[in-house]
Amino acid sequence: MAPSAQSLPTSVSDEKYANVKWEELGFGFYRTDSMYVAKCKHGESFQEGKIVPYADLQISPCSAVLNYGQGLYEGLKAYRTEDGRIMLFRPDQNALRLQSGAHRLCMPCPSVDQFVSAVKQVVLANKKWIPPPGRGTLYLRSVLFGSGPILGSFPVSEYTFTMFACPVGRYHSDNAGLNLKIEDKFRRAFPGGTGGVKSITNYSPVWITVAEAKAQGFSDVLFLDAATGKNVEELYASNVFIVKGNVVSTPEISGTILPGITRKCIIELTRDFGYKVEERVVPVEDLLDAEEVFCSGTAAIVTTIASVTFKDKKTGFKTGDKTLAAKLFATLTDIQLGRVEDKNGWTVEIDRCHQCETLKL
Amino acid sequence: MAPSAQSLPTSVSDEKYANVKWEELGFGFYRTDSMYVAKCKHGESFQEGKIVPYADLQISPCSAVLNYGQGLYEGLKAYRTEDGRIMLFRPDQNALRLQSGAHRLCMPCPSVDQFVSAVKQVVLANKKWIPPPGRGTLYLRSVLFGSGPILGSFPVSEYTFTMFACPVGRYHSDNAGLNLKIEDKFRRAFPGGTGGVKSITNYSPVWITVAEAKAQGFSDVLFLDAATGKNVEELYASNVFIVKGNVVSTPEISGTILPGITRKCIIELTRDFGYKVEERVVPVEDLLDAEEVFCSGTAAIVTTIASVTFKDKKTGFKTGDKTLAAKLFATLTDIQLGRVEDKNGWTVEIDRCHQCETLKL
Ligand SMILES: Cc1ncc(COP(=O)(O)O)c(C=O)c1O
Ligand SMILES: Cc1ncc(COP(=O)(O)O)c(C=O)c1O
Repeated sequence: MAPSAQSLPTSVSDEKYANVKWEELGFGFYRTDSMYVAKCKHGESFQEGKIVPYADLQISPCSAVLNYGQGLYEGLKAYRTEDGRIMLFRPDQNALRLQSGAHRLCMPCPSVDQFVSAVKQVVLANKKWIPPPGRGTLYLRSVLFGSGPILGSFPVSEYTFTMFACPVGRYHSDNAGLNLKIEDKFRRAFPGGTGGVKSITNYSPVWITVAEAKAQGFSDVLFLDAATGKNVEELYASNVFIVKGNVVSTPEISGTILPGITRKCIIELTRDFGYKVEERVVPVEDLLDAEEVFCSGTAAIVTTIASVTFKDKKTGFKTGDKTLAAKLFATLTDIQLGRVEDKNGWTVEIDRCHQCETLKL
Repeated sequence: MAPSAQSLPTSVSDEKYANVKWEELGFGFYRTDSMYVAKCKHGESFQEGKIVPYADLQISPCSAVLNYGQGLYEGLKAYRTEDGRIMLFRPDQNALRLQSGAHRLCMPCPSVDQFVSAVKQVVLANKKWIPPPGRGTLYLRSVLFGSGPILGSFPVSEYTFTMFACPVGRYHSDNAGLNLKIEDKFRRAFPGGTGGVKSITNYSPVWITVAEAKAQGFSDVLFLDAATGKNVEELYASNVFIVKGNVVSTPEISGTILPGITRKCIIELTRDFGYKVEERVVPVEDLLDAEEVFCSGTAAIVTTIASVTFKDKKTGFKTGDKTLAAKLFATLTDIQLGRVEDKNGWTVEIDRCHQCETLKL
């Protein structure tokens, strides 16, 4: 939701880097060189796809995705380290989440190995678009969707899995912490729905309120549960945590919030720091009563929440260097950027033979 | 959900008609000659589009529809009358419903006149695909979607409106009445969601249960409300009515069910027949206690429901010639096919100059 980066001025230009003014990179669409495409017929399995020049896809007007929203996406990042390596962060987790979503939306899915291999190929094919260390990351977006025509009758005859790359900077541009609006009318997800998977159907239905909140000067929206309207769920595209004393709480995974990969890491890191972590129902009152609040996500990493506004009443929280969020941000990015030892085995280095430039998958 | 009609055997072939074995027509995708496409940039209005040969659309991998499900569809039918006229049924109502959906999903929308003009153009361009009178209809499917790339930041730069045509036969193949499964876990829509508009995001999320029900031998699924799980909402793609004595009841329009155009007609016709019609909350118990149950939709027209199965218990209802459903079906199709006078002004004849073949829009 940061300002668009489509018209970035350019400065650097050499073989190693694309012609991008990295300092000005936001979080937006930026066209790069190559993408990955694989197709699969009904009843078959996904085979190895192909790296092709980035271009529009040819899609049937009667396709399942255009007519009935049958699609899932995933997002992850590739990082350049100070010493010139290229790292991925837990790509297997995205692959697994895509699989659970594919089951929910009745689609076949690439295997974990196929997914991770696709990520590596897309990163290498767009290597010069990976920002210099500390200046940003290469965001990898994949979409799995029903591409075959369907009207009335099942099954969908064809599925497509595609992945492309965009260099990105910060997701939220509010440096001093986010100011959230707690949404009291529109809901993001509901029990028996698709909130627990990264279905494309969870996103545009809430644009109406996200757009309104932005227009009112808020950074993002915090959604409440549809069943009772009393409990905190998550932001538009990140999970939420509240801190009180030595206890860190976050909404439990029960089918209405996305099981964030960053969320999972935060839980582990916070326990390592000595906090007690509770995954549970989080009533709005508990949030309003917290000392510190932050959100987590691939795009948001760990971002402090400075305030929430609920029914026109604004409540502020602790921000700055001394927050748990600041400590988590530093720890997580140190691991992601290869600045410290990765004791959890979260990072995956993209490994190429330096002799022949062939990717070791 | 009827068996696919993709591999229809062909028999008739002349100038007036395409090469289709009309007797065997089901409800499925069937490729025809021409489609309509119009595009609109952010901040502008839809201009008149173009009739082009039916073909795949070129869509950005980063488009709003593929990544965030920003899309709406509409469906209506063109009918050939015994005396050779071509009729549409309340196309303005589809145009209006598309507008309300476009507002909900933050999209610009063609005007009512543009929509109706597009319908007429698509019908005439595919005229030979309109089945002979009584053998089926030409189904017009339109999709409005965010086609511009978007990542993180608003707005979407481009929107596309497209419409194509398929000859179709019966939607439900169960002649003796539908056998429905009342779904007790998955929900279709929820307060604060998109159930009240024809958002593509409402459909694939429930395929998992519709597919299971079909595999179990059911004709379709009846959904309950997400808030309480106690009240009847609608089928996968049709509205539901229950009859007891002189009272006909149907779930009220409160944002979680689609305001069906057929539903609206049924309400008027039923009142004309002398019934009392109640739009209200319909608890499952009321349904189980009904004498007769039927569903309505553009595809389903009016279809008798022979039974519902709730928590493994099956309840049967009145079927056959003497039902209100049978009377409504006959009355409605007589109007749609131009066999009786249309006192309500629901039908629109496609008017061409017989001299120069030009469409009078
Ligand atoms: C709705 C929602 N919640 C949470 C997240 C955070 O998940 P992750 O940490 O895996 O990026 C996302 C991520 O993109 C999301 O879309
Ligand atoms: C969910 C749903 N309910 C009801 C209907 C019936 O609406 P209409 O009578 O306008 O076709 C549809 C139509 O297609 C639908 O998708």
